[in-house]
Amino acid sequence: MIDYRRLRVALLGAGAVGSQVADLLLTHSAELADRAGAELELAGIAVRDVHAPRDVELPAELLTTDAETLIVGSDIVIELMGGIEPARGYILQAINSGADVVTANKALLATHGVEIFDAADQVGASVYYEAAAAGAIPIIRPLRDSLAGDRVQRIMGIVNGTTNYILDRMDTEGAEMADVLADAQRLGYAEADPTADIEGYDAAQKAAILASLAFHTTVPLQAVHREGITSVTKSMMDAARHAGYVIKLLAVCERLTGRGDDPAAEAISVRVYPALVARSHPLASVHGVNNAVFVQAEAAGDLMFYGAGAGGVQTASAVLGDVVSAARRHIAGGVGVGESTRAGLPTVDIGQVVTRYQITLEVRDRPGVLARVAGILSEGHVSIATVEQSQQPAAGEAGTGFARLVIGTHKALEQDLSETVTRLAADDVVERVVSVLRVEGD
Amino acid sequence: MIDYRRLRVALLGAGAVGSQVADLLLTHSAELADRAGAELELAGIAVRDVHAPRDVELPAELLTTDAETLIVGSDIVIELMGGIEPARGYILQAINSGADVVTANKALLATHGVEIFDAADQVGASVYYEAAAAGAIPIIRPLRDSLAGDRVQRIMGIVNGTTNYILDRMDTEGAEMADVLADAQRLGYAEADPTADIEGYDAAQKAAILASLAFHTTVPLQAVHREGITSVTKSMMDAARHAGYVIKLLAVCERLTGRGDDPAAEAISVRVYPALVARSHPLASVHGVNNAVFVQAEAAGDLMFYGAGAGGVQTASAVLGDVVSAARRHIAGGVGVGESTRAGLPTVDIGQVVTRYQITLEVRDRPGVLARVAGILSEGHVSIATVEQSQQPAAGEAGTGFARLVIGTHKALEQDLSETVTRLAADDVVERVVSVLRVEGD
Ligand SMILES: NC(=O)c1ccc[n+]([C@@H]2O[C@H](COP(=O)([O-])OP(=O)(O)OC[C@H]3O[C@@H](n4cnc5c(N)ncnc54)[C@H](OP(=O)(O)O)[C@@H]3O)[C@@H](O)[C@H]2O)c1
Ligand SMILES: NC(=O)c1ccc[n+]([C@@H]2O[C@H](COP(=O)([O-])OP(=O)(O)OC[C@H]3O[C@@H](n4cnc5c(N)ncnc54)[C@H](OP(=O)(O)O)[C@@H]3O)[C@@H](O)[C@H]2O)c1
Repeated sequence: MIDYRRLRVALLGAGAVGSQVADLLLTHSAELADRAGAELELAGIAVRDVHAPRDVELPAELLTTDAETLIVGSDIVIELMGGIEPARGYILQAINSGADVVTANKALLATHGVEIFDAADQVGASVYYEAAAAGAIPIIRPLRDSLAGDRVQRIMGIVNGTTNYILDRMDTEGAEMADVLADAQRLGYAEADPTADIEGYDAAQKAAILASLAFHTTVPLQAVHREGITSVTKSMMDAARHAGYVIKLLAVCERLTGRGDDPAAEAISVRVYPALVARSHPLASVHGVNNAVFVQAEAAGDLMFYGAGAGGVQTASAVLGDVVSAARRHIAGGVGVGESTRAGLPTVDIGQVVTRYQITLEVRDRPGVLARVAGILSEGHVSIATVEQSQQPAAGEAGTGFARLVIGTHKALEQDLSETVTRLAADDVVERVVSVLRVEGD
Repeated sequence: MIDYRRLRVALLGAGAVGSQVADLLLTHSAELADRAGAELELAGIAVRDVHAPRDVELPAELLTTDAETLIVGSDIVIELMGGIEPARGYILQAINSGADVVTANKALLATHGVEIFDAADQVGASVYYEAAAAGAIPIIRPLRDSLAGDRVQRIMGIVNGTTNYILDRMDTEGAEMADVLADAQRLGYAEADPTADIEGYDAAQKAAILASLAFHTTVPLQAVHREGITSVTKSMMDAARHAGYVIKLLAVCERLTGRGDDPAAEAISVRVYPALVARSHPLASVHGVNNAVFVQAEAAGDLMFYGAGAGGVQTASAVLGDVVSAARRHIAGGVGVGESTRAGLPTVDIGQVVTRYQITLEVRDRPGVLARVAGILSEGHVSIATVEQSQQPAAGEAGTGFARLVIGTHKALEQDLSETVTRLAADDVVERVVSVLRVEGD
């Protein structure tokens, strides 16, 4: 039995993730000590209500409502309360009292990351947050360390399990969103108030964190363009399938080169929206609540990281990995190395983004319509790659007199595209713009 | 312009990988300095022949044949020569002179890893080897750091691009191995002497490295059971496809629990062989020269890491990531944290491994044969899950009088299975054992 140095660990929160972290810390203590090179002594667990029922049984004497006192004298503070306050205050207290911090709090990091990392830099402390980006999927260390000598060009992530579950079932079963959402809530995959997931807020927070790391740039949450999945209908899903695509909610982080007059000038775009992904793309086979992060780097080429994006025990794995890293750093000595944000690239507006699009229109079924539509697109600098015209109105839609046009474009500027769509919508020959979707990954 | 501390970097080797590393170090120097927090000064490049043609143009004044002198005074030594000697000697020289080492040398680490890591531990140096396990795929940091608080149960890796390319083309095109191998050699995916790849030596080296990390145990190369792909025929491939499988060369690293009398006793098995993988498994869709590492962990669940397992520039990305990590450690101070091998689990013989099998037999086509075969299996403690009997002899095989039996077993002990197969082969009713394949991943 090796006589390890003892590190004092404070846990804030014992909910879905925290209770599992406590359980693993207590049951695997010998193994963790071997891995960390230090004994991890769980000094206490701060909660709101010490009598609340827990997912796992925890020693009553460890529970406390006094987080502030618990933090004092701790070497490692694990924040798993969620939300902005009091989590932010406790984390700053921990940093300033010399502790390293481990957190899974994406909402906090996406909004107050700079403040927290700066505070840590000041005192040479480290902040670990593997679980904040894609749950159990190790993505922080690959981006920050493994790819540190490379240039990330683009990330496409399926980083929200709830929406992937919903879209996947709509795709594979031809189900309606409302039905699947109700199921997801029953199964615990979606919250009673699903807004954070289905409106893309959760994915946007993760996108800000991933982009910051990948591009060595501070990306504020407001710089992330965000659209949720509520506009995605069963008929859009069916049409996508028919065309060889699947609709996924993607977090896209992209490096743009050659801005304005300077061919070497760089900027980034960070956006979350439902997009068409070709069936043959590795992201298309990410099913259910699973997540995946697809990374394209200049030298490394295409990489993909796949796994569970959420879940109490899965997320606890990522948290514990961070705890071991923090412990090793304490043992090894040396100061923490802060986030590298020295590239400081500007973020462009969604209007400056260039992608392919699929536009579905309901048009009057009469001669010359296609020519008219093509003319409007061409005037708007949107070039057509494919057109499919069908006379059959979709089930449940108006009878005769209308045809459906599905137009696949070449790459176009979002700003040009959206102005063109506005013009199409206003034109006589167009009855209705059924959908406009970006195509990603090809 | 920040005035960074300057670190002296020595590069040993300027072949497929080394020349790309040199190129990236020289062309991205400003960016690398920002990421590393230190200027990385490429002090020299050791080669055998300074006049040899190179993949990329390198400053002539940097090339030298005197590696030993180059190493003196270096902060970071990058070893990309390959082979055992002189690579081993130079790495030990570097460690003992206070440098951190970055290497992609799987052959060396799989055979002399303990010596090298011990030497580094002695002086508090670090050895980085991301590129040695799965090329550009970040797998070392996820295993060592992200999963440090979890328990890896099993790894299944496609870690050799050459064999995956060959098996994939045999699968998708129904091609013969010899033809595909010739193509692979023409395309540069296979060496003129393909032994290291197709006999599984390369995969076995990587398996030893992955298992050591995953199980915190020193796994010597001799402990890895190794079978290559030369026994895989077109007809085996066709039969696998017919049955909903694909044949992949897998590196399997597995934790075994409950050995002998002690239900808590643990051991590991590390093995490389061609195995049947269900089409629905994520590993089945790893095509061409791509690699992937599928990891099952107690808390994190299933994870997969996918990308390029080789290639000069791809591998250079992983090497550069290590160089930046080494530089950051130099700046941060503190000692290097060595490999954790404290679990020290024993490795079991292949005979102790438990998997499912698929046995294909050519049997006499007469009544009672199935009963006889079933009897032999049952006596041998091998339980049958499925049987498929076909009267049609496969193309090019003996005419009538024989039938083909494809038997899927439940999980069985390899030792029992192999004894049973020997008995089957010797039995009157069995004309020939066509193939015996393990089934992995379900
Ligand atoms: N759940 C996941 O799958 C997942 C995945 C990735 C990341 N995360 C992140 O992990 C964090 C925790 O998530 P969770 O799902 O475990 O949350 P949760 O189940 O809601 O648990 C929150 C815990 O924090 C405690 N707490 C809340 N406010 C507190 C306060 N003011 N003082 C003291 N204790 C307080 C609660 O105490 P009581 O129990 O007494 O109410 C509870 O134990 C969040 O930042 C979340 O975004 C979660
Ligand atoms: N290639 C890949 O895709 C890949 C992927 C993963 C890992 N790796 C590993 O990376 C390492 C390098 O592979 P590689 O493909 O780049 O090898 P390579 O193309 O054969 O290059 C070897 C380099 O080392 C130099 N060298 C060899 N022996 C030397 C000696 N005694 N003294 C000085 N220089 C010497 C050679 O010099 P000359 O040029 O003058 O002959 C050459 O520049 C190997 O350990 C390999 O396993 C390679």
